[in-house]
Amino acid sequence: MGENILDAIDETIHAKVRLGIMSLLTVHGECEFVFLRKELQLTEGNLGNHIRVLEEAGYIDVTKTFVGKRPKTTCKPTALGMEMFQQYLEGLEKIIRMAQTGKPEM
Amino acid sequence: MGENILDAIDETIHAKVRLGIMSLLTVHGECEFVFLRKELQLTEGNLGNHIRVLEEAGYIDVTKTFVGKRPKTTCKPTALGMEMFQQYLEGLEKIIRMAQTGKPEM
Repeated sequence: MGENILDAIDETIHAKVRLGIMSLLTVHGECEFVFLRKELQLTEGNLGNHIRVLEEAGYIDVTKTFVGKRPKTTCKPTALGMEMFQQYLEGLEKIIRMAQTGKPEM
Repeated sequence: MGENILDAIDETIHAKVRLGIMSLLTVHGECEFVFLRKELQLTEGNLGNHIRVLEEAGYIDVTKTFVGKRPKTTCKPTALGMEMFQQYLEGLEKIIRMAQTGKPEM
């Protein structure tokens, strides 16, 4: 099967929660922390950890502002993040096609 | 978006190595330990740990025989494993479609 089928699986994205974050950011363009937390049914701490991993990898930008006295945290995918996520999706599709057709991808 | 898009992501399968194992077993029907180790470029210990997780979940059967004096370990997906893997692939496809069309799946 030549190269390792798992090579395209970027662990920075593959972790379940981070896959959810990148998917929602791709659909919505940008999301508030509160929205992500509710959609993915996570604790603040858990979501915060995963957002930090994506931010440190340069896959998302995180901006913190205030609406009145209320802090507002917004996440937005970077160009790098979008590109890596597309590559990741293509790698995943390749594995899915392989698994469903029962034929190894040459 | 109603239910959590991550609900279908079975962590027993989603871990990168275990996704690779289930994909190869689906393509080949059954695989020897040595084959999996080479294809996925893993150490024996690492592969052994992941195989144990899948076996304990009832997703694969592991049989140990001898060819002459050489031990031979063969892995085969169970009916449950195949079913759970199909559900997992469908959930993954849903996320990929959502991310690529930019439209949340109702």
